[in-house]
Amino acid sequence: MSDRPAARDPFLLTIPSGDNRERKVCADCGFIAYENPKIIVGSVCEWQERILLCRRAIDPRREFWTLPAGYLELNEASKAGAEREAMEEAGVRIAIDGLLAVYDIPRLSQVQLIFRARLSGPELAPGPESLEARLFRWDEIPWADLAFPSVEWSLRHYREWLASGDAAPRHNPD
Amino acid sequence: MSDRPAARDPFLLTIPSGDNRERKVCADCGFIAYENPKIIVGSVCEWQERILLCRRAIDPRREFWTLPAGYLELNEASKAGAEREAMEEAGVRIAIDGLLAVYDIPRLSQVQLIFRARLSGPELAPGPESLEARLFRWDEIPWADLAFPSVEWSLRHYREWLASGDAAPRHNPD
Repeated sequence: MSDRPAARDPFLLTIPSGDNRERKVCADCGFIAYENPKIIVGSVCEWQERILLCRRAIDPRREFWTLPAGYLELNEASKAGAEREAMEEAGVRIAIDGLLAVYDIPRLSQVQLIFRARLSGPELAPGPESLEARLFRWDEIPWADLAFPSVEWSLRHYREWLASGDAAPRHNPD
Repeated sequence: MSDRPAARDPFLLTIPSGDNRERKVCADCGFIAYENPKIIVGSVCEWQERILLCRRAIDPRREFWTLPAGYLELNEASKAGAEREAMEEAGVRIAIDGLLAVYDIPRLSQVQLIFRARLSGPELAPGPESLEARLFRWDEIPWADLAFPSVEWSLRHYREWLASGDAAPRHNPD
């Protein structure tokens, strides 16, 4: 229990002068708190025809399998973010080869940048956000236990890239 | 002048449990205000070998030339955002053909998604954020008066794409 009074929220929803949509504006000082979509950076990481997946230790979708991926941080470049997530979630260094896909999830105000990457070896060391990390051959991938639709899109688009070599980035399937 | 007391900022910079970097955390309620990079969406728009540029009516870089581009909004997909910016800044409908480039500006916590697009005609109608909008042949482009480095990168990468047809997205030049 705190003996401090509850904070009064000074923000009002209003359309600032010169703008065309509602923003949170501080009634006291006029500060405009712009809110915009967030960027997820992640990668499909291969080692000898096997793909790295991590089993989530956190909600949402705890216990389901995902790519190493997460929010891009302030002052971070997108490839550096994808490398950091692979290190944090699977304990691996990756070499990024290119951009596989850009997925839009407007319902969640998310844009996902998914890269193609290679591992230097099969040693994995899952971090606190992963229950386990594993390398899967294509016919071993746990399709029914993937955490999010974009994990399946990424895997299928990666396989398509392997077959075609077409370097144009993929987008949400129709 | 307001007779309301100045708002007390209840946020402290601290590392939340399970995290590994400082966040703004509300001392009253524990709410974590995550701050992440923002997404700029824009396009290189061509009509009959001429490229659309807009002269900025707003700071920063007022009076300099730029591509139609701006912040992606909540619940907006990236191509829809680029189409909206072309309409707001130059009064044009565009048909997007593909992703030209992903530029990282970590100093500004920005990721820019720049698309390739076509105009359906040469009629332009600059909006309130543009002093003028114009179509430039390559040899007319005002290189010395471009607003930002990424405008020049986009134009040079677009020309490279025209010459090579290579659909792999470009990134920041070295």
